[in-house]
Amino acid sequence: MSNHQPHDRAINVLQVRRLGIDTYFEPVVFMRSDCAICRSEGFESHSRILVSLRGHHVLATLNIVTSNLLGTHEIGLSEIAWKLLAAEADDVVTLSHPEPLESMRHVRAKVYGQRLDDAAMHAIIKDIAARKYTDIDLSAFITACAGDRLNIAETGALTRAMIAVGERLSWDRPLIVDKHSVGGLPGNRTTPIVVAIVAAAGLTMPKTSSRAITSPAGTADAMETLAPVALDVKAMRRVVEQVGGCIVWGGAVQLSPADDILIRVERPLDLDSEGQMIASILSKKAAAGATHVVIDMPVGPTAKIRKLETATSLETAMVKIGQTVGLNISVLVADGSQPVGRGIGPALEARDVLAVLRNDADAPQDLRNRAVALAGRIFEMAGSITPEAAIAKAQVLIDDGQAWRKFQAICEAQGGMRVPPQAAHTHVVAAPAAGPVISIDNRRLARVAKLAGAPQSPAAGLYLHSPVGTRVERGQPLFTLHAETPGELAYALAYLYGQPPVVAIANGQ
Amino acid sequence: MSNHQPHDRAINVLQVRRLGIDTYFEPVVFMRSDCAICRSEGFESHSRILVSLRGHHVLATLNIVTSNLLGTHEIGLSEIAWKLLAAEADDVVTLSHPEPLESMRHVRAKVYGQRLDDAAMHAIIKDIAARKYTDIDLSAFITACAGDRLNIAETGALTRAMIAVGERLSWDRPLIVDKHSVGGLPGNRTTPIVVAIVAAAGLTMPKTSSRAITSPAGTADAMETLAPVALDVKAMRRVVEQVGGCIVWGGAVQLSPADDILIRVERPLDLDSEGQMIASILSKKAAAGATHVVIDMPVGPTAKIRKLETATSLETAMVKIGQTVGLNISVLVADGSQPVGRGIGPALEARDVLAVLRNDADAPQDLRNRAVALAGRIFEMAGSITPEAAIAKAQVLIDDGQAWRKFQAICEAQGGMRVPPQAAHTHVVAAPAAGPVISIDNRRLARVAKLAGAPQSPAAGLYLHSPVGTRVERGQPLFTLHAETPGELAYALAYLYGQPPVVAIANGQ
Repeated sequence: MSNHQPHDRAINVLQVRRLGIDTYFEPVVFMRSDCAICRSEGFESHSRILVSLRGHHVLATLNIVTSNLLGTHEIGLSEIAWKLLAAEADDVVTLSHPEPLESMRHVRAKVYGQRLDDAAMHAIIKDIAARKYTDIDLSAFITACAGDRLNIAETGALTRAMIAVGERLSWDRPLIVDKHSVGGLPGNRTTPIVVAIVAAAGLTMPKTSSRAITSPAGTADAMETLAPVALDVKAMRRVVEQVGGCIVWGGAVQLSPADDILIRVERPLDLDSEGQMIASILSKKAAAGATHVVIDMPVGPTAKIRKLETATSLETAMVKIGQTVGLNISVLVADGSQPVGRGIGPALEARDVLAVLRNDADAPQDLRNRAVALAGRIFEMAGSITPEAAIAKAQVLIDDGQAWRKFQAICEAQGGMRVPPQAAHTHVVAAPAAGPVISIDNRRLARVAKLAGAPQSPAAGLYLHSPVGTRVERGQPLFTLHAETPGELAYALAYLYGQPPVVAIANGQ
Repeated sequence: MSNHQPHDRAINVLQVRRLGIDTYFEPVVFMRSDCAICRSEGFESHSRILVSLRGHHVLATLNIVTSNLLGTHEIGLSEIAWKLLAAEADDVVTLSHPEPLESMRHVRAKVYGQRLDDAAMHAIIKDIAARKYTDIDLSAFITACAGDRLNIAETGALTRAMIAVGERLSWDRPLIVDKHSVGGLPGNRTTPIVVAIVAAAGLTMPKTSSRAITSPAGTADAMETLAPVALDVKAMRRVVEQVGGCIVWGGAVQLSPADDILIRVERPLDLDSEGQMIASILSKKAAAGATHVVIDMPVGPTAKIRKLETATSLETAMVKIGQTVGLNISVLVADGSQPVGRGIGPALEARDVLAVLRNDADAPQDLRNRAVALAGRIFEMAGSITPEAAIAKAQVLIDDGQAWRKFQAICEAQGGMRVPPQAAHTHVVAAPAAGPVISIDNRRLARVAKLAGAPQSPAAGLYLHSPVGTRVERGQPLFTLHAETPGELAYALAYLYGQPPVVAIANGQ
């Protein structure tokens, strides 16, 4: 291909047009079916095209336009294509056929049952990070590695390749601690509390968190109601050096670019892959510069890890691979059968966090206990201290207000502490009868919170007054819906009252 | 999900707008980021949305629009979404969250190493045919079945599932013959000749062929320069009942809808899958109502099948599975080391076909011989006749003009015979030195033909005057380039003369 490019370059130029179409991660370009280049190059809908502009190169998928949306001299760019090319109005881009994707032969080899070594994994991950893989290619790679198809050597190779293609932060301190939760429970917002506790004890914890994908709030969404979280690497470093910890949005830091791309295809496929999960977690922790990492691993029927044996085999692999990339790993297996905290939605979850840190009387104890256990494990890893003493140390740091003051300092350093927004419209859902609360349908509760506007409307969501096990009287509040507009409140209510109760109360008691 | 749809239906409506964007097979819809439904439903770029209109339902992928391309009350539809919904201007569609895709759990089971039975394959293929799988889902299914991961039982189940979801033609005759080529050689246009020969002998052959995907011409493209090929099932049936045979475009007939969808993802992945290839071929033949099928299987270093062992194992599986779906299969293994015929491009390949059928003095003998061998094998399958007698019978049918007359009758029945177009602009590429032609770079030759306009410009392409083995004098024509416009000719020439010679002549002989 390469030896005809000088010729192509001379002819294959079109003027850019920003169409304002968000095609998510995959760059898409739009060209008229009757434009000279489509005809001469034989480009068709879904052709892959190399688009070049001032040294930026983007591999894009073509959508053919048969209307007057574009002129024949124009090429429409999707938002991500526009951004990656750093395009400006009236720019002229050059188009050519892309080189064949050599690393796909390693993916094919893996499909046919061969093992991948460090060089093969590196070639694949490098191309993925450079956005050369289509969604179809990514899906094939993920499927070929799913289940238990990656052995420990391959999982290690994948982890090292992911670290190699990203930035790896280095800190001027010997001990950097971190924390990760495998497969979240609803409302499990321990992260801001844990960071506050361990940073209050003088440890360094540069924590990155994600936004919600399908849930009503991610840790980054909740934290954003308390302080800015979209910090770049430079700003994150300044915060951590100043106050010893941070809670920022990982998407802005982009520590593991290949993993960010893989996750977006893994999620809709819903394929469990032990190897990819380990590589994803460890590569992000290594990239953040961590040396000691505690892994929160809830095990339960609705959690990601359902069996203790799975947790044990994951722990063995993580510890072993962690050693090859300079990470000291400790896994905390916890009960994952119950949700944690009372709020669902960014601001409501943030209020749970504040209640714990401030020692409020109504602070959810389950959330506090879990955060204390994680911080305690970090103290154990960081120095010679018994488990009991480590837990006690974490408790004291909350009780005497040190964690709360540290948290405020972190928020200030991240750009200024905020008061979580309060929803303008609320509606109390009351118990239709007296009795004990015997179950809560977390999936439908999450849907109600999303219909009310979470996470786009940060104040929206719901707050549980009566967790499972509480006894309620008839008319007593079960939960309160929060919405920013009357329309969203009505929308969530219409859904809610068209359903069987999401909070179940035992009959006739 | 289903129990909230009555509510969603009342609220989630938007007015359609045809954007004229061709997104290939995957339906895409475009909505403003600030439209009420995106906000309330939490739809984001790449969300899957169920779009409904007058009983038509389409699962579409969402692209968010951040410009004024659309109003907030509008939804833009891609061409395929518009077509599948049978939308008209000012229609109002209803939007909702789709049901979870249950059959993906079988795909996951296959990824984790379980075998798929008839019920599981049927559930998967039914959802694929209903276009419920995204490209990512399709890629996972294809990858999970690639290589030798489908055993004969699973390949049979896949074949039966593909037949079950499509239409299966039935003919009022006991014997229906068909032919398929596995992995094409350039220029191998035997199909029109074979159909003409066997129909001339009184057999029935309802042949469907494909258009070019990456090559300068498919059989349907070449045939289209001789007669209309975009016939629907009803028209195809009329032709076959009238003249005993047809050569139509399979894309218009849509006999195996699931296969058409799978192929579009299989091709870019370039993953060999014996099971899927067998299911694809046999399901299409069964759907066409065939009872006896000859499989043309060229074996050679640049053909799809490279080793004789592979051909043998394919043959065994095809014969065995064919029996379970009422197909009598015979495989003709042939030399696949050389291209066949002289023309490259729709009209130029059609002229080769005409030359053979008319017994022209300069007809390419390799093409004739291959067509005769295939027709002979069909005669063997159809009745008690020795291989030698079968070959002789096929030769006589060409020699005495019966095949030619039958071919003309087929063309007339398909809508009227045409004279293949002649290119307005030609350029002869002459031998730079005397000597024997020792090799032809078929890949680059195909590229030259495509740059000259093939297959979109049916007259475009090139014609080889001196096949490998011929001796040429200096200045003697090697091949002639054909183009419909001077620009396309110039474009192909600029590429050609920027390259090493595509036709190599031995030095100093």
